[in-house]
Amino acid sequence: MSGDPSPTSMEDIVMAPAAGVAAPPASLTAGEQIAATLLQARRVAIVSHIIPDGDCLGSMLALGLALEQCGVEVITVNADPVPDMFQFLPGQEKILPPERVGGVPSILVMVDSTDMERAGKGFSQWRQQAAVVINIDHHVSNTRFGDLNLVETRAAATAEIVYALLARMPVTITPAIATCLYTALATDTGSFQYENCTAATMRLAARLMEQGADLPLIREYVWERKPLASIRLLAAALPSLTLAYGGRVAWMTVARATLAATGAQPEDAEGLVNYPRSIAGVEVGLLFRELPEGSIKVSLRSKKIVDVNGIAARFGGGGHRRAAGCVIKGDLDTAVGWVVAATGEALNEHRVY
Amino acid sequence: MSGDPSPTSMEDIVMAPAAGVAAPPASLTAGEQIAATLLQARRVAIVSHIIPDGDCLGSMLALGLALEQCGVEVITVNADPVPDMFQFLPGQEKILPPERVGGVPSILVMVDSTDMERAGKGFSQWRQQAAVVINIDHHVSNTRFGDLNLVETRAAATAEIVYALLARMPVTITPAIATCLYTALATDTGSFQYENCTAATMRLAARLMEQGADLPLIREYVWERKPLASIRLLAAALPSLTLAYGGRVAWMTVARATLAATGAQPEDAEGLVNYPRSIAGVEVGLLFRELPEGSIKVSLRSKKIVDVNGIAARFGGGGHRRAAGCVIKGDLDTAVGWVVAATGEALNEHRVY
Repeated sequence: MSGDPSPTSMEDIVMAPAAGVAAPPASLTAGEQIAATLLQARRVAIVSHIIPDGDCLGSMLALGLALEQCGVEVITVNADPVPDMFQFLPGQEKILPPERVGGVPSILVMVDSTDMERAGKGFSQWRQQAAVVINIDHHVSNTRFGDLNLVETRAAATAEIVYALLARMPVTITPAIATCLYTALATDTGSFQYENCTAATMRLAARLMEQGADLPLIREYVWERKPLASIRLLAAALPSLTLAYGGRVAWMTVARATLAATGAQPEDAEGLVNYPRSIAGVEVGLLFRELPEGSIKVSLRSKKIVDVNGIAARFGGGGHRRAAGCVIKGDLDTAVGWVVAATGEALNEHRVY
Repeated sequence: MSGDPSPTSMEDIVMAPAAGVAAPPASLTAGEQIAATLLQARRVAIVSHIIPDGDCLGSMLALGLALEQCGVEVITVNADPVPDMFQFLPGQEKILPPERVGGVPSILVMVDSTDMERAGKGFSQWRQQAAVVINIDHHVSNTRFGDLNLVETRAAATAEIVYALLARMPVTITPAIATCLYTALATDTGSFQYENCTAATMRLAARLMEQGADLPLIREYVWERKPLASIRLLAAALPSLTLAYGGRVAWMTVARATLAATGAQPEDAEGLVNYPRSIAGVEVGLLFRELPEGSIKVSLRSKKIVDVNGIAARFGGGGHRRAAGCVIKGDLDTAVGWVVAATGEALNEHRVY
């Protein structure tokens, strides 16, 4: 999958028989099957990925709120704390870390995650103990790890898939659900700018506005409440901007010391990759951030040609063709050397350098 | 109008009898009247404001392309050159400065402009020579200077008003027209983030996508082709960030020397005001940019409370409640002192400080 530059397909919705439960009628689509499974459940755990973003949180919470409307007991689980910018999402205050969940529910839903490992530590026994694992995602690198897989790589966000799933349930889209889903759409499309954003995305956003999405609150938290420290981090990181391969690749680095000196949080660094990417002539923008445990988090973004999912996969990561990530053991110089070289090779394959 | 914080109204569509032409039937709406006037014209000049932005250019060009479809001869006019980021808009290459227009057409359309003065120099005789002046705008500070006024302050962009006007004409929305209008919507809403963006805006964007708006081109020019110099300007300007009034006001300054040292163009400074505005706790963000002729261009942005149109009006400027501008004679320190003090007074009126 990693090196394949062909467009993703609507056929990515894949069904597999559920392990340990009676196989449902083959005539049902994956969406119908998942809706039926969830509505029959007594207790469901919804899990999303580490370093949580707007799409995984918004999708998880919207699905949780909807299932609660249907009388299902829901536990929402994330290994990491909710970033400040998402601490307005309805239900976010009830998200638990895995170690605080007493008794793994038999139905486990993973949202917005390429594989179970994206959930992070603390979930090792969950896969075995769950009767059914449901996989709802839009990443091209998704491994179809679920017993039921609803993977739609054309969706701009997992939230689009969740909205379609809710349409199969006796659910009212409340303002709270609309707020969660709008936040997911707006953040995963880079404020409706990225290639993944379609007319369907824009129409869904319009519908969610009418269904009561709290836009003033979303604006305030997501776009208008940047910590002063994050602006200081930007000022400190911009001088590291470097270009290579005739200006086709650009990157910035954030050392642990920089993060500490500015008082910024790790999530404040997430958006920095857009600065190198946004420069005229740049095809691939990179951000290298030093993690506490002696490794480097790499964010990769491309514009039109290079499949950064393929580059990230070479280092054990993944994502989408235009946005991916990986973690590399070593120091900043090592990671920059490796990833910039791999990016140069990818550019060369496409003859853009 | 400047100090009035009340919501704008749908009743802002105002009709006035055309000077020098037969008064049209009173039963026609302003839109119907303007459509009829334009379709009967042989030759029309469309004019937009100085320091042109995506909305004034996109609206002007879309209307021009549509009228050409209807057999009307169109001249598009702007006193300033088209910024690099908009040099992909269909028809932009035909925009003329006023001094190159031979013979003022009898029908003059001003788009996206609060008054005739916004067109800049070179138009002094145009108002007198034109038989009919048509005013199409969405600014709350619009002076209704036209013989026919189509002012809709609830529209996110003038492009929304133009789209509705085109619906009254025998016009096919071509991909070129869709590209112009989408660019206008996307830029005037800050990529669909600002308060002015409604469900109708999102639906129009979806429709324009389906009508062939060239999103890859828009993305490339508007969001992904930032001059390297503009990133350098950002790096140079961020250290000037200052907060006052308990963190409710934040501003940055750009001296002429900074612009020169980074090699950036004046338009590269336009978006910088969003950095102070985006900070948590800030209600009003300001940008002060030194102009060549010994004056300071001030950009004002507020979030929820302060009417910056009112503040700008105190210094001879205007705009919207949440986004306005003015030009002040003097040096940076003088302008900062005056505008920050006026902003403090406005905060005080609203008891947010």
